[in-house]
Amino acid sequence: MTERTPIEVKDVLKRIEEHPNVTGVIIAEKEGGQAIHSTLDTMETAYYIKHCNTLTGIARGAIRETDPTNDLQFFRIRTKKYEILLAPESNYLLIVLQNTAKASGK
Amino acid sequence: MTERTPIEVKDVLKRIEEHPNVTGVIIAEKEGGQAIHSTLDTMETAYYIKHCNTLTGIARGAIRETDPTNDLQFFRIRTKKYEILLAPESNYLLIVLQNTAKASGK
Repeated sequence: MTERTPIEVKDVLKRIEEHPNVTGVIIAEKEGGQAIHSTLDTMETAYYIKHCNTLTGIARGAIRETDPTNDLQFFRIRTKKYEILLAPESNYLLIVLQNTAKASGK
Repeated sequence: MTERTPIEVKDVLKRIEEHPNVTGVIIAEKEGGQAIHSTLDTMETAYYIKHCNTLTGIARGAIRETDPTNDLQFFRIRTKKYEILLAPESNYLLIVLQNTAKASGK
């Protein structure tokens, strides 16, 4: 996985946060699960980090169980009300929340 | 969620299985996790049903924890080597595996 510089990360974040469908963006440390950046309040941030870390951990374990050379790249969870996009990078987890209604058909 | 008739389900399945990127399709009972239909061998089928049921169960629990009127609709897991699409219907779970290489850019 390619490492990005802090400036590149900032630019990517800005582009994501300015997207009209996006309702929240969180970046969390992979180890420990502390938020590095979040547009949500503390409780919501903690809620998403906790559950998203659990899901990516289980998915990664399952994927590598049969093939240790494989790895998780991206996760998209659509609910009736919103969509969660998860991008596990090497040191952090990017969580993006977006509206399902506007995002439908994508 | 709209229920489909067995003929509609067969048609949908045929269309999915004929898609050039698709490498496997499983339909599993929601309760008990038995395969109703699978294009994979018994071991692979059991592996995917087990892990996909775990993931959808955890995701659904997390989603409904804060909002019991919300529900999981669709799950997309991209790995380096393949992609897993999960569609939990009311009585069954549809699992579709497709090539990441050919599917990239979607």
